[in-house]
Amino acid sequence: MNDFHLCYQNYLDEFEKYLNQYVEKLKTKPEILGESMAYSLLGGGKRIRPVIMLACADVLSIPHEDVLPFALALEMIHTYSLIHDDLPAMDNDDFRRGKPSCHKAFGEANAILAGDALLNEAYSICFSQCAKGEQYVAAGKLLNEYAGAFGMIAGQSADILFTNQKNDVSEEELRFVYEHKTGKLLLAPVVIPNILAANRNYLSFEYFGKQLGLLFQMTDDILDVTGNFEELGKSIGKDENVNKLTCVRLYGLQNAKIRADLCAQECHAVLEGMDGDTEFLHQLVDFVLVRTK
Amino acid sequence: MNDFHLCYQNYLDEFEKYLNQYVEKLKTKPEILGESMAYSLLGGGKRIRPVIMLACADVLSIPHEDVLPFALALEMIHTYSLIHDDLPAMDNDDFRRGKPSCHKAFGEANAILAGDALLNEAYSICFSQCAKGEQYVAAGKLLNEYAGAFGMIAGQSADILFTNQKNDVSEEELRFVYEHKTGKLLLAPVVIPNILAANRNYLSFEYFGKQLGLLFQMTDDILDVTGNFEELGKSIGKDENVNKLTCVRLYGLQNAKIRADLCAQECHAVLEGMDGDTEFLHQLVDFVLVRTK
Repeated sequence: MNDFHLCYQNYLDEFEKYLNQYVEKLKTKPEILGESMAYSLLGGGKRIRPVIMLACADVLSIPHEDVLPFALALEMIHTYSLIHDDLPAMDNDDFRRGKPSCHKAFGEANAILAGDALLNEAYSICFSQCAKGEQYVAAGKLLNEYAGAFGMIAGQSADILFTNQKNDVSEEELRFVYEHKTGKLLLAPVVIPNILAANRNYLSFEYFGKQLGLLFQMTDDILDVTGNFEELGKSIGKDENVNKLTCVRLYGLQNAKIRADLCAQECHAVLEGMDGDTEFLHQLVDFVLVRTK
Repeated sequence: MNDFHLCYQNYLDEFEKYLNQYVEKLKTKPEILGESMAYSLLGGGKRIRPVIMLACADVLSIPHEDVLPFALALEMIHTYSLIHDDLPAMDNDDFRRGKPSCHKAFGEANAILAGDALLNEAYSICFSQCAKGEQYVAAGKLLNEYAGAFGMIAGQSADILFTNQKNDVSEEELRFVYEHKTGKLLLAPVVIPNILAANRNYLSFEYFGKQLGLLFQMTDDILDVTGNFEELGKSIGKDENVNKLTCVRLYGLQNAKIRADLCAQECHAVLEGMDGDTEFLHQLVDFVLVRTK
């Protein structure tokens, strides 16, 4: 394992420990509610959003304990969105991270409620931080803005609208889906540490976060064509089947790969100009670019 | 129109005006997201939760402008829960308030997102109040607690669990569903004004809110048997069809009516012992008891 993977693993372990402590205390009545929430929360995955948040906390030299509650809330929002996205009425995915998706394991009704409950609990964590000061209120507010009707959900709604649309969709429309559906929850872990650090001038961070979000979604689209089920843990080739709006559909596979490469270069360029130790973030960009899962 | 109905209408008009101002500003991209949210939010209904909140604000002599944002957030949470409850995988209701339910009007995927977005927006409103002071943070926190995995959603989860259960269910289990599924969002508008008024001693209010919630759900169960579609605006006779756990199933219709009556008396008794002008709340209890919709 090289330094990057060791460092990633350390961030991951720290987050998983924090997550496990939360899940152990999550005793609901009826039990099935908490079980379905825990099932999806503990489904593994890269935890890239919490890892980015911890890494940005380090660049800004703020304590991990400040960002961990928000990293957990963010991961819960991400998880709820996957549960609802996987439902038959949405993307109809039977697998997630190599396991049956939530509705396959617990039934559709319980999966809808598990998603709703995770979204609620995410804000419960945000509210629990409010008394610490106004930056903490602002961080919760930002997460809410990025997750909601003008953030991620706008992207999901546009994704549904453009999927299977007869007319050709434009680059602008693809960008809107990217920036909202995936982008907002990948921007949040870059911006929130800046808010908590009371760093008002975070334009470079913001630009980096946006580019990283684009890169992540582009590689996601590419993997849907080039990846395999064993590594990805979810169905592949689905985008084409349902005629989803992706960068592969818009540009073709080869050009999509070139654009992903350019996007990674853009990430590196903005990191160059930033203060603090951004070595891990540089390596993270390459990790996202060449990922196979 | 007698004084009670005039007063109810005044509260209702005040809330509707506030709601409409909010909806007018709700311009989402894609438009269908905001349209589906507005469709369900503006679906009419008794608005009993906002009305209770305004009435309790008057008993406590606090300004309506303090409670209105929370009344709106509460109504949004109530609305999201109805949208998700009506889905085919949940209660599978094609009608709500006399109109096609959200998924019938916009499709299932859009309805799931409309519900998610309303829940998010409800907390957006709560966060927008946080800077006003710690009671405002506490009010948002309480609403979140009552709506979430240990509040309303626990009740929805239990409702699913007990529906169609072969073995007889107990009074205790019925009470759990009542207190959580309907009870929490009817308790919230009684407790929140007390929190905003910094009134720490609100045991009587709390007891009243709990009893009113029980009464509301009992009359709801009774109306599913005795009501008609035109007045209720939703399908009737459904509880029995799916063998749902209701007070009618547990006690029989006649005994359920007697229990509802006793519950109303309990509400009146606790109001008697309270300070402030509780005349409207007394009449509201009778309104709930004899309602036909």
